[in-house]
Amino acid sequence: MPERERRWSGWGFEGERFPVPEAARSFLTERLGAGDPLPAVPEGEVKLPPSRPLPPLPLPAATDDGSRLRSACGSSLPDLVALRTGTVAAYPDAVCAPDTPDQVVELLRAAAAGGVTVVPRGGGTSVVGGVTVRPGGAPTVVLSLERLRGVISVDAASHLARVRAGTFGPELEAALAPHGLRLGHEPQSFEFSSVGGWVATRSAGQRSTGVGKIDDLVAGLEVATEAGLWRLAAQPASAAGPELRRLLIGSEGRFGVITEATLRLRPLPEREDGLAVLLPGWAAGVEVCRALLQSGVPVETMRLADPEETRFGMTLAALSPLAARAGRVLFGLRRYRNGCLLLLGWAGDTQGMTLTEQIAARLWRAAGGFALGRAGWRRWRADRFRHPYLRDELLAAGWGVDTLETAAPWSGLEAVYVRVREALARAAAALGMRVVVGCHLSHAYRDGASLYFTFFWPLARGREIAQWGALKSAATEALLGAGGTLSHHHGVGTIHAPYLEREVGRTGVAALAALARELDPHGVLNPGVLLSRTPDPGPRTPGGREG
Amino acid sequence: MPERERRWSGWGFEGERFPVPEAARSFLTERLGAGDPLPAVPEGEVKLPPSRPLPPLPLPAATDDGSRLRSACGSSLPDLVALRTGTVAAYPDAVCAPDTPDQVVELLRAAAAGGVTVVPRGGGTSVVGGVTVRPGGAPTVVLSLERLRGVISVDAASHLARVRAGTFGPELEAALAPHGLRLGHEPQSFEFSSVGGWVATRSAGQRSTGVGKIDDLVAGLEVATEAGLWRLAAQPASAAGPELRRLLIGSEGRFGVITEATLRLRPLPEREDGLAVLLPGWAAGVEVCRALLQSGVPVETMRLADPEETRFGMTLAALSPLAARAGRVLFGLRRYRNGCLLLLGWAGDTQGMTLTEQIAARLWRAAGGFALGRAGWRRWRADRFRHPYLRDELLAAGWGVDTLETAAPWSGLEAVYVRVREALARAAAALGMRVVVGCHLSHAYRDGASLYFTFFWPLARGREIAQWGALKSAATEALLGAGGTLSHHHGVGTIHAPYLEREVGRTGVAALAALARELDPHGVLNPGVLLSRTPDPGPRTPGGREG
Repeated sequence: MPERERRWSGWGFEGERFPVPEAARSFLTERLGAGDPLPAVPEGEVKLPPSRPLPPLPLPAATDDGSRLRSACGSSLPDLVALRTGTVAAYPDAVCAPDTPDQVVELLRAAAAGGVTVVPRGGGTSVVGGVTVRPGGAPTVVLSLERLRGVISVDAASHLARVRAGTFGPELEAALAPHGLRLGHEPQSFEFSSVGGWVATRSAGQRSTGVGKIDDLVAGLEVATEAGLWRLAAQPASAAGPELRRLLIGSEGRFGVITEATLRLRPLPEREDGLAVLLPGWAAGVEVCRALLQSGVPVETMRLADPEETRFGMTLAALSPLAARAGRVLFGLRRYRNGCLLLLGWAGDTQGMTLTEQIAARLWRAAGGFALGRAGWRRWRADRFRHPYLRDELLAAGWGVDTLETAAPWSGLEAVYVRVREALARAAAALGMRVVVGCHLSHAYRDGASLYFTFFWPLARGREIAQWGALKSAATEALLGAGGTLSHHHGVGTIHAPYLEREVGRTGVAALAALARELDPHGVLNPGVLLSRTPDPGPRTPGGREG
Repeated sequence: MPERERRWSGWGFEGERFPVPEAARSFLTERLGAGDPLPAVPEGEVKLPPSRPLPPLPLPAATDDGSRLRSACGSSLPDLVALRTGTVAAYPDAVCAPDTPDQVVELLRAAAAGGVTVVPRGGGTSVVGGVTVRPGGAPTVVLSLERLRGVISVDAASHLARVRAGTFGPELEAALAPHGLRLGHEPQSFEFSSVGGWVATRSAGQRSTGVGKIDDLVAGLEVATEAGLWRLAAQPASAAGPELRRLLIGSEGRFGVITEATLRLRPLPEREDGLAVLLPGWAAGVEVCRALLQSGVPVETMRLADPEETRFGMTLAALSPLAARAGRVLFGLRRYRNGCLLLLGWAGDTQGMTLTEQIAARLWRAAGGFALGRAGWRRWRADRFRHPYLRDELLAAGWGVDTLETAAPWSGLEAVYVRVREALARAAAALGMRVVVGCHLSHAYRDGASLYFTFFWPLARGREIAQWGALKSAATEALLGAGGTLSHHHGVGTIHAPYLEREVGRTGVAALAALARELDPHGVLNPGVLLSRTPDPGPRTPGGREG
C-alpha cells in the first residue's frame, strides 16, 4: 500500500487532526484554567549537529537531517515537547534499514566491533522512551525495521502466520483477511506500530480482554543477536525448560532484535457488535466487569470509564443536539450523577453472541445499568485510533496530557484508583496548579484488570517537562505503593527503568542484566532501556530478604 | 489429613493396585510375546552406602536408610528399574525438610558455603530424572518441600490463592472448595505431586484444554535463592519487562527453590459431565478436536485415543459382558475398524454446557462419530489416577512400558504421529523385539495439540535400561526431527537435557546457563537437570546461524 507521510513532530499522518471540540475546551478551561500554548517549531528551524563518524557498516546508512530527526524520538510527552520546541537532546548518527534478518545480524556484529550503539525501531510509538536516542553515549545507529515487512506464510490449519517484525497493524490484518483469519491485536497505535514493537513491549490491544495480550499470541520468534539468528519455532505449548519466547517478549531490544514472529490467529468473526451502558458509579461498574470475566463470558472489548473520564469523553463525542440534551437529562438524575460509561464489544457467531449479550445484560441490569444502545459503541469504535491526535492539539492549546496504565488483582484495584488520583492531585497542588484525572478499566482478566489513567494540566512555558515529571513520578510511586504493576502494556523504556527494581526485586534486575550480558555481550543494544544500568558481572553478596 | 504410606519402589500408596486384566495380558502376549518378569527386591535387601560427611546445616538432616532410599529417585522407567532391582546408583547423604521459606534460603547458603549439592523434591513423581540423585558429585542433600504445605490465604474477589509449594493436589482442592473455588489442575500424578513441582516442570492437567497449563495459572511466585527470598507479587498481567514468572516456571530447581505460588482459580462449576464418542479413524478424530478448539467451544477435557490405544484401553476397562459384546460388534463394522475413542468433558452452568454439547455434537456427528454415552467418560474419570499403578504390575509381568509426550501445530501433528511410531518400531526391530505403541491427543490449543505416546515391549532381564534407552532415544530423535517439542508437560530433567539445545538453540542454552550462574552462583542446585552442563562464563565466539 502507498505510504502516507508521517508527521515529524507529533502523532500520525500529516493532514489528519482531531481538533479540540469547543465543549472540551470549555471543560478544561473551567477545570484547569488556561495554560501556555506550546506551538511546534517548523521543521526547517530544527538544527541538527553533524553526524559523528561511524565505522564501516555492512549496509547503507542514511545521514540526512530528515531521516535523523524522524528517528530520534518516540511518542512520550518529553519526546513531544522536545520535538515541538526543537530541543531534541540527541540524534542518531545514521539510520540503517536492513532488508533481511541476516543483515540485522551483520549490523549488530559491525556495531559490536566498532563500538556503536544500536537502537532498534519499529513504528516509533513508544510512550516510555523505548526508542529515544540518548545523549552522551557512543555513536548511534537507529536500526529501522521498516523494510522487514509482510506476512511470510500462513498455516491455515493451525491458525498461525509467520510475520516480519516491521509489519504494521493494518497491513497485517489485510494480508490475513483473505485467509478468513485475523490477529485481532489492536492497540491504539495500531496504524503506526509494528509486530516487533508489540512483542518487544508486551503490548495489549482494545480486544485483548477477549483475544489476550500479545504475550499470548506469540507462538514462535526469530531474534537477531550478535551470535546469529536465534529461532524458536512455533509450538502450541511446551515443557522444554522455561519459556524463552516469554523472555524475549518484553525485552525491549535489550537481548536482540526481533525479526519475525509466528502469531496465533482466530477466524474472522461472522459478525461483531457492542453496546454502551451507563452504570450508576465506579464501584458498581467494576463489579460488573469482574462478574463478566469470572463468569467466563467471551467479551472481546471491555472498557469502563470513571465519572471524570465519562464526562470528558462526552465533550469529545460531537453528540447531536438531541443526544446532548438526553445526556444532560440523564446525568441530571441523582442515580447517574456519578455515571460511568461501560463499553462492551463481542464478536463471533450469532448464537454465541446472543448468549453473551444475554448474560452480560443480566449482570449490568442487576447493577442498575441503563442501556445507551449500540450507537455509542460504534462511535467509539470509529474514533478509537484518532484519539492520540488530540494530544498534539491540546499541547498547542496550552494543556499537557499524558497517560499511564497499571494492573492489579480485583481486590487491589480500588486502592490503586484512589491513591493514583490522590497523588496526582497532591503533586499538582504542590506545583500550584490543578489537574484533571480520568481513568478507565480495560483489559480485564479473571484475577484482575488494568487501570488506564489520563491526566491533564495547564502548561507553563519552559516548565512542561518539570510539570510532567512531578506528576508522572508521583503517580508511579502511588501505583507501585498500592501494589499495581509498573506498566500493563506501555513497557519500561527509559522512563520506567529506574522503578523496575521496585517491582521485580534486586534479583529480578540481576537476572535481566545477566541475560543482557550473555545475549548482547558488547552492550550494543538500546542502553538505558529496561535496565537503567547494567550491573557489572561478578560474585554478589548474599543479600537479605527482598521485597 | 492423615498421610498414607507411599510405596518405596513404585507408584502411589502401599496397598493400592491396578492388576493387569486378563484381556490386557492376552493382548500384550499376542502382540509382544512374553518378557522376563522384573520382581521388586524386598526393601530390606537394598544396601545403602553410608552417608558422606556433611558440613554443619541449619536444620535437622535425616540420614536413615528409609529416608535416603525414598528420596533417591523419581518415577522414570530407569528409576523404577533401579529401585525394583536394588541397583540405585546414588543416594542422598541426608534429607532436610525446612519448615519455612527462610529456612530454605539458609540451607542454600550453607550448601553454597560447604560445597553441598541440593536436590529440591516435591512429590518425587518426575518421569524424566528431575529429582534423581546423581552419582559422582558433591555430598548431596535432598531438600524436601513436605513441610511447606497448605493454602496461606484466599483472595475470593480476585479468585487467587497463595499456596505453599509442597501442597499436593487433593489437599489444595479440599482447601479451596469451601470458598466455592477450584484450581482444576489435575495431572495424572494429582494425588502425589505438588504445586511447586507443577510450576517447576510446566505441568499440564487433564482439564488443561479448558483451564490452561500451570504456566497460565501462576499469578505470583516466591522463590528461595542464595541471595534471599525473591517475591514476584500476583499480577493479572504486566509489561514491566520480560515475564520473570515464566522464567521460573519450568526452571526445574536450577534457578532457585519455589516456596510459594499464587494461583488463578475458577468458581466450582454448577455441574460437570462428559461423553465418549467413537470416531471412524484417527484423522477424522484429529479434525474434530481441531474444529472444537478453533471454534472456541469451552471444552475442559479432550482426549482422543488412536486405534491402538483405543483397543488396548478396552482391555483395561473391565466392561460388562453386554458392553464387551457391543464393543466387538461395533469394532467389527467396516466403518469403525480403526475406531478411535474421543472423551470430551465440560463443566459450568447448565445453559453454557448445553450449548457446548450441541456444538460439539454437530462436529463429531459430521465426522461420522457414534455416541457411546456418558458411562465411558465417567469410567475414565473414575480410573484416571489409577493408571500409573499398572506400570508396576506390567514390569512384574514382564513388559516394559513408558510414555512420552510432545506438542506441535495442527499442521505438523500427523508427521510427529507417523515418525514416532515408525522410529519406535524400527528401534524395536533392531533389538529383535516387537513394540506396541498407543497414542492419544490431549491438551489441545487453537494452534496445535499434545500427542502422548505409550509404548510397551517385552523385557529382557538385565537389559531393561538398554532396551528403554534405544526406544526412548529413537522416539525423541523422531519427534524433534518432525518439529515436535521435546516435552509438553513432563519437563526436561536429566533424561531430556542432552536434547534441549536441539529445541532452543545454542543461544537458548547459553541464556539459561547465564541465568543459572547468576541465580545459583555456586552451582548448588540440581546439577545435570535441565542443562547437561553449565558452560563456563566468558566471551563467546559469534557463531553462525543456528537452527
